[in-house]
Amino acid sequence: MTRPRPLGLRPDPDDSVGAIGEFALIDRVVARSGAAAVADVGPGDDAAVLRTPDGRVVACTDVLVEGRHFRRDWSSAEDVGHKAAAANLADVAAMGAVPTALLVGLACPADTPAGWLEGVAVGMAAECAPFGAAVVGGDTSASAPDSQAVVLSVTALGDLGGRAPVLRSGARPGDVVAVAGRLGWSACGLAVLRRGFSSPIAAVRAHRRPTPPYAAGPAAADAGATAMCDTSDGLLADAGHLAADSGVLIELDRAALQQAFVDPAGPLPQVAAALGGDPMAWVLTGGEDHALVATFPAGVDLPDGWTVVGAVHEPGDAGPGVQVDGVPASRVAEELGEGAGHVHFG
Amino acid sequence: MTRPRPLGLRPDPDDSVGAIGEFALIDRVVARSGAAAVADVGPGDDAAVLRTPDGRVVACTDVLVEGRHFRRDWSSAEDVGHKAAAANLADVAAMGAVPTALLVGLACPADTPAGWLEGVAVGMAAECAPFGAAVVGGDTSASAPDSQAVVLSVTALGDLGGRAPVLRSGARPGDVVAVAGRLGWSACGLAVLRRGFSSPIAAVRAHRRPTPPYAAGPAAADAGATAMCDTSDGLLADAGHLAADSGVLIELDRAALQQAFVDPAGPLPQVAAALGGDPMAWVLTGGEDHALVATFPAGVDLPDGWTVVGAVHEPGDAGPGVQVDGVPASRVAEELGEGAGHVHFG
Repeated sequence: MTRPRPLGLRPDPDDSVGAIGEFALIDRVVARSGAAAVADVGPGDDAAVLRTPDGRVVACTDVLVEGRHFRRDWSSAEDVGHKAAAANLADVAAMGAVPTALLVGLACPADTPAGWLEGVAVGMAAECAPFGAAVVGGDTSASAPDSQAVVLSVTALGDLGGRAPVLRSGARPGDVVAVAGRLGWSACGLAVLRRGFSSPIAAVRAHRRPTPPYAAGPAAADAGATAMCDTSDGLLADAGHLAADSGVLIELDRAALQQAFVDPAGPLPQVAAALGGDPMAWVLTGGEDHALVATFPAGVDLPDGWTVVGAVHEPGDAGPGVQVDGVPASRVAEELGEGAGHVHFG
Repeated sequence: MTRPRPLGLRPDPDDSVGAIGEFALIDRVVARSGAAAVADVGPGDDAAVLRTPDGRVVACTDVLVEGRHFRRDWSSAEDVGHKAAAANLADVAAMGAVPTALLVGLACPADTPAGWLEGVAVGMAAECAPFGAAVVGGDTSASAPDSQAVVLSVTALGDLGGRAPVLRSGARPGDVVAVAGRLGWSACGLAVLRRGFSSPIAAVRAHRRPTPPYAAGPAAADAGATAMCDTSDGLLADAGHLAADSGVLIELDRAALQQAFVDPAGPLPQVAAALGGDPMAWVLTGGEDHALVATFPAGVDLPDGWTVVGAVHEPGDAGPGVQVDGVPASRVAEELGEGAGHVHFG
């Protein structure tokens, strides 16, 4: 679809990307994207050039597929931008680093309104702005010939500021396990949306725009965290990554988790009561809140926002893994009926 | 589909990614991916950590969509890996930098054979290996519910080694225009495949596995190139980027291009004769060879592999742009009947 537009008017957000073409689309999106503080060269050349004062760069990639990770009828374009950025920025924080820049690979149908993609750019820019980060590059393509879906692949870069990166493999028996951020809110919001409701809005908003505790990552690194990751797949699954990579048993305390993450006056019990569920199912297996889970040497003063929820032990006869009050995570997840976190290709 | 597998056997390449799951898939792909020389932390954590000895990092992203940029019946998995890597590594070279690492975002159907994705990883690793670069991270997802297509979004990082980046905006009147690499071979190979043929193999191979002149990028920067980009969209279109961003007129010499890029004994005239075409159409508008086009101050000794094909002038009344022997690029492209380069969302 092409149509004439009077000169001098603002770009029409209803223009399709097919009508305006790739380069005009990029111009519009870049206009919404802000500027990265570290960028010597930003969008528009073959590549961006970014300063890396630490002498190292942290880099990660996360893919969001329409119909798998978001729905355009459940989330606004800005929501999708926030969510796509947050998933990546949380991974940067989970290394103990501060985000500096994003690059975005996009495949979308030719009839996608340019305004929708501008909205995604606005959401990403807003999520990045507190760090002085921004989208510095990317590429667009038409979706596959058989598809009407948007696919976003976002790469985030970050700076460690002299910190040692906090890996998944450093947890040691005797450490405490702590969590920063929210657990179960995104899954709770998804349950609401799946039933056709749009409130409580706090839960729905948590699903649309996760709020990872970014500052808690570098703070944990500064405090001596021995291992850390974000909970994109759910606490049991992601604590499982720490346990496996560190070769330890992680014992979680259900009562501590319940007390810290299930506010009796909050949306989790309210939605669970309305829909007939258990808030702890979302806390233990719900993904996409991008809370951080870390281990610290016992006796360390935890930074603000971190709550102890368990302890690290030598692996038992069954090998490394996660338990909740002595029950293996796989059995806990089975009893909760939610499966152990998000599994793609399931 | 799941099926039992005897312990101790090698992973079966026919296993689908849906059957083995995301984490096993990642393990298999990582096993094929080699190690990046600059990686302090490689795949498997929340993010990679890479050394940036230059104090800056070059970063770019390129998207490849099945059915748009490759077909699984025309290209092997390794071909697709080579091509996806090359598209990005050429962008790094076009800044005057040397590639250090790739990150890969992947969406694919659950029934994709794991062996196909291992093949992609092998191709990427082979394309990266000469630089000591490798895949250091990424993410996988199932394709959109409506799609059976693979979408690859690759981000490349690179190091400038103390060089100033060569931008698109630095061309100045009086400069010469030069090209390194091949032009028209990928488009020629695509024409062959589209007609159902598979030879001449040199052309088909050029389409499946472009061979960008990587070393020519840093060499051009060292020689004082004033502007540079790669020809992913075709020479006329990409020279157009240099012209527009530099505010200059780029005049290309058709005879010089023909002499340098149409080998009378090579596949271009042969295929053009067989299919009824003009080799210069491919040379001028064919994309995806990832040749480099650059401008240099007149009188500079060009590095090996660079051939002068034109000159930079003050823009005329029509403003910045590209001409071939005095004819505007848009008219040249129209006469050639190929359109001005690759246009997505067309």
